[in-house]
Amino acid sequence: MAEFYAHIKASSGAYKYFCNGQWLESSSGKTVPVTNPSTLQKDYQVQACTQEEVNNVFAAAKAAQLSWAKTPLWKRAEYLHKVAVLMRQNAQPMADCLVKEIAKPAKDALTEVIRSADLIDYTAEEGLRSLGEGQLLTSDSFPGQPRNKLCLVSKVPLGVVLCIPPFNYPVNLAVSKLAPSLMAGNAVVLKPPSQGVVAGIHMLACFAAAGLPAGVVNVITGKGSEIGDFLTTHPAVNCISFTGGDTGISISHKAGMVPLQMELGGKDACIVCSDADLDLAASHIVKGGFSYSGQRCTAVKVVLAMQDIADELVAKVHAGVAKLSVGRPEDNADITPVVSEASANFIQGLVEDAREKGAQFLTEWRRENNLIAPVLLDHVTPDMRIAWEEPFGPVLPVLRVGSIDEAVHHCNSSNLGLQGCVFTRDINTAMRVSDAMQTGTVQVNAAPARGPDHFPFQGFRDSGIGSQGIKNSLAMMTKIKSTVINLDKESYTLG
Amino acid sequence: MAEFYAHIKASSGAYKYFCNGQWLESSSGKTVPVTNPSTLQKDYQVQACTQEEVNNVFAAAKAAQLSWAKTPLWKRAEYLHKVAVLMRQNAQPMADCLVKEIAKPAKDALTEVIRSADLIDYTAEEGLRSLGEGQLLTSDSFPGQPRNKLCLVSKVPLGVVLCIPPFNYPVNLAVSKLAPSLMAGNAVVLKPPSQGVVAGIHMLACFAAAGLPAGVVNVITGKGSEIGDFLTTHPAVNCISFTGGDTGISISHKAGMVPLQMELGGKDACIVCSDADLDLAASHIVKGGFSYSGQRCTAVKVVLAMQDIADELVAKVHAGVAKLSVGRPEDNADITPVVSEASANFIQGLVEDAREKGAQFLTEWRRENNLIAPVLLDHVTPDMRIAWEEPFGPVLPVLRVGSIDEAVHHCNSSNLGLQGCVFTRDINTAMRVSDAMQTGTVQVNAAPARGPDHFPFQGFRDSGIGSQGIKNSLAMMTKIKSTVINLDKESYTLG
Amino acid sequence: MAEFYAHIKASSGAYKYFCNGQWLESSSGKTVPVTNPSTLQKDYQVQACTQEEVNNVFAAAKAAQLSWAKTPLWKRAEYLHKVAVLMRQNAQPMADCLVKEIAKPAKDALTEVIRSADLIDYTAEEGLRSLGEGQLLTSDSFPGQPRNKLCLVSKVPLGVVLCIPPFNYPVNLAVSKLAPSLMAGNAVVLKPPSQGVVAGIHMLACFAAAGLPAGVVNVITGKGSEIGDFLTTHPAVNCISFTGGDTGISISHKAGMVPLQMELGGKDACIVCSDADLDLAASHIVKGGFSYSGQRCTAVKVVLAMQDIADELVAKVHAGVAKLSVGRPEDNADITPVVSEASANFIQGLVEDAREKGAQFLTEWRRENNLIAPVLLDHVTPDMRIAWEEPFGPVLPVLRVGSIDEAVHHCNSSNLGLQGCVFTRDINTAMRVSDAMQTGTVQVNAAPARGPDHFPFQGFRDSGIGSQGIKNSLAMMTKIKSTVINLDKESYTLG
Amino acid sequence: MAEFYAHIKASSGAYKYFCNGQWLESSSGKTVPVTNPSTLQKDYQVQACTQEEVNNVFAAAKAAQLSWAKTPLWKRAEYLHKVAVLMRQNAQPMADCLVKEIAKPAKDALTEVIRSADLIDYTAEEGLRSLGEGQLLTSDSFPGQPRNKLCLVSKVPLGVVLCIPPFNYPVNLAVSKLAPSLMAGNAVVLKPPSQGVVAGIHMLACFAAAGLPAGVVNVITGKGSEIGDFLTTHPAVNCISFTGGDTGISISHKAGMVPLQMELGGKDACIVCSDADLDLAASHIVKGGFSYSGQRCTAVKVVLAMQDIADELVAKVHAGVAKLSVGRPEDNADITPVVSEASANFIQGLVEDAREKGAQFLTEWRRENNLIAPVLLDHVTPDMRIAWEEPFGPVLPVLRVGSIDEAVHHCNSSNLGLQGCVFTRDINTAMRVSDAMQTGTVQVNAAPARGPDHFPFQGFRDSGIGSQGIKNSLAMMTKIKSTVINLDKESYTLG
Repeated sequence: MAEFYAHIKASSGAYKYFCNGQWLESSSGKTVPVTNPSTLQKDYQVQACTQEEVNNVFAAAKAAQLSWAKTPLWKRAEYLHKVAVLMRQNAQPMADCLVKEIAKPAKDALTEVIRSADLIDYTAEEGLRSLGEGQLLTSDSFPGQPRNKLCLVSKVPLGVVLCIPPFNYPVNLAVSKLAPSLMAGNAVVLKPPSQGVVAGIHMLACFAAAGLPAGVVNVITGKGSEIGDFLTTHPAVNCISFTGGDTGISISHKAGMVPLQMELGGKDACIVCSDADLDLAASHIVKGGFSYSGQRCTAVKVVLAMQDIADELVAKVHAGVAKLSVGRPEDNADITPVVSEASANFIQGLVEDAREKGAQFLTEWRRENNLIAPVLLDHVTPDMRIAWEEPFGPVLPVLRVGSIDEAVHHCNSSNLGLQGCVFTRDINTAMRVSDAMQTGTVQVNAAPARGPDHFPFQGFRDSGIGSQGIKNSLAMMTKIKSTVINLDKESYTLG
Repeated sequence: MAEFYAHIKASSGAYKYFCNGQWLESSSGKTVPVTNPSTLQKDYQVQACTQEEVNNVFAAAKAAQLSWAKTPLWKRAEYLHKVAVLMRQNAQPMADCLVKEIAKPAKDALTEVIRSADLIDYTAEEGLRSLGEGQLLTSDSFPGQPRNKLCLVSKVPLGVVLCIPPFNYPVNLAVSKLAPSLMAGNAVVLKPPSQGVVAGIHMLACFAAAGLPAGVVNVITGKGSEIGDFLTTHPAVNCISFTGGDTGISISHKAGMVPLQMELGGKDACIVCSDADLDLAASHIVKGGFSYSGQRCTAVKVVLAMQDIADELVAKVHAGVAKLSVGRPEDNADITPVVSEASANFIQGLVEDAREKGAQFLTEWRRENNLIAPVLLDHVTPDMRIAWEEPFGPVLPVLRVGSIDEAVHHCNSSNLGLQGCVFTRDINTAMRVSDAMQTGTVQVNAAPARGPDHFPFQGFRDSGIGSQGIKNSLAMMTKIKSTVINLDKESYTLG
Repeated sequence: MAEFYAHIKASSGAYKYFCNGQWLESSSGKTVPVTNPSTLQKDYQVQACTQEEVNNVFAAAKAAQLSWAKTPLWKRAEYLHKVAVLMRQNAQPMADCLVKEIAKPAKDALTEVIRSADLIDYTAEEGLRSLGEGQLLTSDSFPGQPRNKLCLVSKVPLGVVLCIPPFNYPVNLAVSKLAPSLMAGNAVVLKPPSQGVVAGIHMLACFAAAGLPAGVVNVITGKGSEIGDFLTTHPAVNCISFTGGDTGISISHKAGMVPLQMELGGKDACIVCSDADLDLAASHIVKGGFSYSGQRCTAVKVVLAMQDIADELVAKVHAGVAKLSVGRPEDNADITPVVSEASANFIQGLVEDAREKGAQFLTEWRRENNLIAPVLLDHVTPDMRIAWEEPFGPVLPVLRVGSIDEAVHHCNSSNLGLQGCVFTRDINTAMRVSDAMQTGTVQVNAAPARGPDHFPFQGFRDSGIGSQGIKNSLAMMTKIKSTVINLDKESYTLG
Repeated sequence: MAEFYAHIKASSGAYKYFCNGQWLESSSGKTVPVTNPSTLQKDYQVQACTQEEVNNVFAAAKAAQLSWAKTPLWKRAEYLHKVAVLMRQNAQPMADCLVKEIAKPAKDALTEVIRSADLIDYTAEEGLRSLGEGQLLTSDSFPGQPRNKLCLVSKVPLGVVLCIPPFNYPVNLAVSKLAPSLMAGNAVVLKPPSQGVVAGIHMLACFAAAGLPAGVVNVITGKGSEIGDFLTTHPAVNCISFTGGDTGISISHKAGMVPLQMELGGKDACIVCSDADLDLAASHIVKGGFSYSGQRCTAVKVVLAMQDIADELVAKVHAGVAKLSVGRPEDNADITPVVSEASANFIQGLVEDAREKGAQFLTEWRRENNLIAPVLLDHVTPDMRIAWEEPFGPVLPVLRVGSIDEAVHHCNSSNLGLQGCVFTRDINTAMRVSDAMQTGTVQVNAAPARGPDHFPFQGFRDSGIGSQGIKNSLAMMTKIKSTVINLDKESYTLG
């Protein structure tokens, strides 16, 4: 199986980048190392590409895009189905990278790859349909106009899409950008995250091996400080699809007149009402808060519990947290090292701030290098940073609130607005609270979740712009074009 | 105001029919009387048209339709807006007919006319938009096909639509057929109900006065025995939109290959769960069961109460029923005479059957000619006719059930499937029960209701075929036509 | 490969029918033979089922449908994909039946089977998407209403669908009914055509082998005189999807209140304008008129040629017709025997009528049993039957017309209105003529065609009711259901 | 009539700005003058608002928006209909401003106001419908998922929309932003153009007089140098809808993560094929090129004529240009002074460059202050600035091209891509060329045009981002919000 990927590695051991159908080493002669969060070893090296190489990549993409746009929809779908087959056949080496690069538990790593192949298949079939269907508008819908104009409305490609996925799902959140971009007739330049980059290169190898025309997909690697802004402000970019943190905001301030599909942070609140099924709520909170050590955009990041059920709820959550295993990703531990020392330090800062301001610790603070044991904090108050900031680690704060309105107000006061959830049995409460919560999605009686992948997914305020989910991503990767047939005289179609 | 309608009445005092832009008396020399349900007086006479006159009407409609189909959408909308203005300006005489013909409480009669004008306006604007928007499909969405075919999908008129409204809303359920038919470019032949016919003729006078081209709208009256089958099986009919009772089923068995939009009876069940808000449920049951003396398709026609709350619920419903006034429509009584002696006799039969089989009467049986005081029956059992048959009168049976499944099973065992409702606070119960009830619409926490008029409205099983509601009625009044542009070579639209 | 089908044949050699998951012989002890149109041999026997067996089939279907409706969409799709795989794997024996039963050229027979498998796959993926997407409507779109009602609009199954395909595409036009029916959650009873029945049974064997739950698909065979009306008027039928001839009209007159999807005959006109590309037109006319010996609904059945180009056009068509081979389906002849002696006689009658009334024969009349050499008739006039009737054989009449209006008038005067086509280079002419032609589809610059299969397909007037094409068939196999959530107070969803 | 506007003018004679329901004078004590392009007189003064006043306006808008978002759709529509009535009633004074501020011919000025009222009405009814309709998605459309999640997809407001219309249609292109913004539940801050500002203030007075809640609409005026960037980068801005020139690009580079709806310049090409109707083409070119002195985004800005018809075409265009009257807007001259001296100078520069490089002048250069007589240039070559730059004045260059491909190539080489048009009789050419032209809209056989207003309207490359047209603008003024109801177990809705 590993042979499939043999050609993406240089003789030096560093991974190559992919430009215009060729796997290349950078002329810089330099590489960037990837640190394993568990061992702190530098397991991998990738190319430190130059700005000139970035230019080459964009030139290749731009040149390839026009003929790619003239490829029938079913043919584009056929390519994507082939990619999905290759990903399933060659999943394990890609998953192994996820274990070593981002300390993702081994089983979850494999699941990420397989789920990504499913997403590609679904996107292909969805695009085959949605992109081949436009509108026919007639002029006589507007007062005073005869029916002498037929407007044919099509969806056309944007051009070159720059895809920047985050470290936590470097495969899945790359294909969720690549597949719709390609299906819609765009060429793609992928800039993988610093960690997860090698998994991303493996993934791209499956696209490359599917025989897509040269230049249609490309991957570039390097130091953010050298090529970051150069990439995102490049004049050849016609769309940026980014998932990640605050970098996204600065990208948006420089990007210019290109469509942005951005998913940045989240501080997803979980409102637990007095009438909620507390067992259900607690199990969702534990899973929602601590899966992949809390390093998920849609993790439960703050619990807003009604006073009258808070004791009982916290006890149930505590019991759940106590069962979480802490250890190595290779052993499928629930809690594994966070992605970097910087991240671990940031998390520790939030926890110390909470301790100083009087939060009640239901678990003991334990950290070994990047490995942090799960932290459950009760009686958190709005003056603590943890009430507002996103730890992206295994830390969950509980705020006790006196009313649903107070809970909603806390949720809506955040500068982040990705998802939120509310637990209640009552149908009126469920709809009223979900209407009032100003987040891209509100989950009623379940933890926030990105999937299923055909549902819309979007963040409000600083959490993002544009909508994802397979159908919406396909739409975002296109623009509208109108063709108006002006007839010499009015004509009405008869049945 | 009455002057507006002066020309629709012959010197004999009988109302004329309308064919090809002219108000005419039948060559039969015969008329059909209309009996006032309250007074049993024959207040009105309408023409007893002949089969030849039916032929004339269809010939006029067919001839007019083609040029009507070539009228811009905005122009059709303009005509309909004018009709709405005229209906509002000349509402009172039309409402007076409703009071005398069908004993509708005076206020409700006026409301029916005004609400009908609103419906016309809404339909005009809806049709202006939905009918001017079709689809553009490209061939390359199908495996193996290049993009060399563009399919333009339009909605075109059906031709001549036969509209047959029922007695209980002879104005509103006529315009809900006429307005979408016309907006979609069809010509219309209206056959009003035996009672409500004079209101219907008044309504049509507003369409006529709006200046619609001759033949586009027509109204024919007469004895069902003479022209009923002749109308519904007429070869010029391209669509039948019917609201009424079992007649609809026999129409459907003879109709041939024409689209049918039919709303027949209902036996709408109200399931009240143990956790329901019983005050809310009781108030909806009283209103839903007894408005217009129960003569509504979407009346609550059987209450299915969970054993543990049945006593309390029934007491609350009883208290509500006790407050209903019984009397004359001119006085706006809640309960007024039912439409005919035959109807009153039928209702009495159902009630006597229930008495014999042991139903508990919470109200006393009182009948004076067609006026029947409200009847609330508890402990009704499935062997009673009233558990299954539609009284179309002020009679409401309560069945006590041991489980939600039993209630759903009762609902689904009916040959009727118009609407149903469920009262529960629980969101899971609400969705599970509404999913399980096999009726066209399920109302959660409210009585069945046709409106708001832009919501879909349809019956299952013997309750009908096709969907209503403004948008769906517009769709039903059209058929799809495709134009395929075959290009000489493949071509891809570029952005 | 033949082993796959071993179990569908009784020891007697007659093919079994399929009811509730079991392959059975009829208790009638009788069989119905199938005559090979080429050899006039009775190659096959099928069961002559009884009315009781029809009842059993419907009972099985009805019972199975409810749990089938509770099967996730993706699971239904998975079953259908499995059927497609099995059809491809076991295509040849099924194709062989088409050669022997309906004299379809061998290559085309195999293509029909493979194309049917493609259609199943496409339908599965289409239904997966379209059926899982409904509407959310809010009450405040209607004047005077607060936002306190949320209407959830879903598509639900109809119940049991009776599928009756025609002899000419007994596999393809069966799966185009079965696949959407099943995908939409319906159970299916298939009644194959008298000829093509054995191919249909083979096809059903693939559905059966895919493991669909017992009762979900069924096939019944027998004499039309015994079970025809019994089937189509059976109370368990919730939808009829029929393709065929005039029988369809009589079915529609008895069917009652069930949705009808009917495609009956066609008399597709080909209008050739003075500015047309005559080589293009001629090649489409030859192919459109004579493929499968003209036994296609969408065959070109009358050419309407402008006087000034008629000579040249007819010469080109004649040259094309002269190249057609006549012979046995096993040898892939262009023209093969028509389906039955009755059909051959009917065709001969039309040709003789044309001869008597003065049509000019460009080819010689040759007939041997059911094999008729291609007939090209020029100077056909409206008094000839062939100008209006559908030969369903290798006969093509050319009428010369003085104007486009005359051509359109001829087309619209037909009681049939399936498709039509117009050849012209001019964009204004193309749109004006296609608008004016009152047929379900108008092809600009190509012969009529059912496909690509995702395009809408429908007939006007006596050519049918309802629309086909994959997306529309899926829609036709469902009905709308509304769930209205009534909130206790108005609520507005905030962003 | 003028009384209606009395309160918007300060005692100083300067026009006020409107903040939080109040007409105010700036605390700056300063005003900005508006120069009449015809007379060069400073006819008007408007407030020079301060940054603090900008802050106040945004604070008011932000505060008002939340409760506006809780207003029923029909109520929002009712307000807008009231605005339309007021605009029609008080149209003349508004139109008079257009004559004096931007030298728009008097008749066209009045038309602009009336057409704007129509647009408001249409937007109200469109939004009433499109905004009240969302999607219902079920989880079982995705492989492996049971139907236990219902996703309700709504469109919610963006918040505060900053509307910046251009000088050439300061009323129409303001309401095309305001009406959809408001209908969708947003609050609005209007920044009118330097010229056209007084007309814009008049227009806003109609919104104010309709009784919209305080803060929902606001207008701010001032010097671009002082408040321009401050406005467009203000943190309270949730959407920018801008029409204008290159300023838009710089706005987009600073705007951050807010949706942009931008329409910048156009260099709309008119390709005239050899088979075109040259009279039709010439008349569209003259009207398209010189209406409102060429100061329209969608003016024909370059003619690409096939060599073989160029002489004839140019002669016909020349004849048309010769008939254009040149003079004062009050006299409804065809050609009136361009908006400013700077603009006139820029135009002159383009013309002089063309002269130097050898363009053939078919008309004489005449300029008097801002009034420039129409200029028709033949034999223009790609090295001339006028071949690529947008004069926004009465200057039309003709390039002669050797092939359609050369014409398309010229069109696609422009950095602007708003609209384009092609004149040809041939349907294949029409579709092939319109597919190949990379502009937001391609008009077949007519000059570029923004309307009818319900058609989509968008520019590619530097011509803009986002789509306009009533329906698309409504969509752009919203974002998607999902509510997912997670059921306790899977549930399938039954029919």
